[in-house]
Amino acid sequence: MRARDLAQHFPTVTVDSDAMEAVRLMAREQLPGLIVCEANGRPYAVLPGSQILRFLVPRYVQDDPALARVYDEKASDELISKLVNSTVRDLLPNKPDIDEIPVVDGDATTIEVAAVMARAHSPVAAVVENDQVLGAITVRHLLDQLMPSA
Amino acid sequence: MRARDLAQHFPTVTVDSDAMEAVRLMAREQLPGLIVCEANGRPYAVLPGSQILRFLVPRYVQDDPALARVYDEKASDELISKLVNSTVRDLLPNKPDIDEIPVVDGDATTIEVAAVMARAHSPVAAVVENDQVLGAITVRHLLDQLMPSA
Repeated sequence: MRARDLAQHFPTVTVDSDAMEAVRLMAREQLPGLIVCEANGRPYAVLPGSQILRFLVPRYVQDDPALARVYDEKASDELISKLVNSTVRDLLPNKPDIDEIPVVDGDATTIEVAAVMARAHSPVAAVVENDQVLGAITVRHLLDQLMPSA
Repeated sequence: MRARDLAQHFPTVTVDSDAMEAVRLMAREQLPGLIVCEANGRPYAVLPGSQILRFLVPRYVQDDPALARVYDEKASDELISKLVNSTVRDLLPNKPDIDEIPVVDGDATTIEVAAVMARAHSPVAAVVENDQVLGAITVRHLLDQLMPSA
């Protein structure tokens, strides 16, 4: 099997997309993460769900989750309001290491796809041909395809 | 909202579960990862899908995915056979840092749940009461619950 046979339709967002809309898309389509493209369509990064939480939760609370107790329940539930007037670029880690973007070309074999996702600890890899995203492969779909029938 | 209200049913496996069965469960139930318990039911680790790929793909290929080209397509598709006669314990990283297991108690607020997942880069957190797993919260479900209605 090659990456292009494994690729499934996967919605993409751009670095300038509205953050709230992007997170809503991820939740609604039950995606493990988002593929973020530049304005020209080239993949720029994969944004896993846990990275969105890193943006929402203040750094000192991440360092010591017990400090979350200083927030009352209402303030805690309003965490998401930080997405208002933010873009997807704001959600991304600073200076993403370009090497670590999980992208494969259509010819990649399953082991290459697996290696790229393993290396980047990513739940999804983008399949790219001619600088455009053809689709994506999730860890779950890859494992499902590799698994012998029960 | 509190963790116990957000918790959803989530199948667990133990460190001694058959690795192939565990991965099949994850693929079939479309889970972002597996909650791994000790024999006594206490949560021991969360195993995200990308960690399973880290077990399957030889280290030197992870370090340089281009080396995957030495595998032909058939050998690549047979990657999964490494799961035969393995247990879930084999899939886990060595000496997991006990601090980094994404576990919250039923009383935790949403920000505490978010902080624990963000810190561990985990797609899921286990909700525990009286040393037993009550259920789990995925990043996706947490974001979905926090999101204002469209």
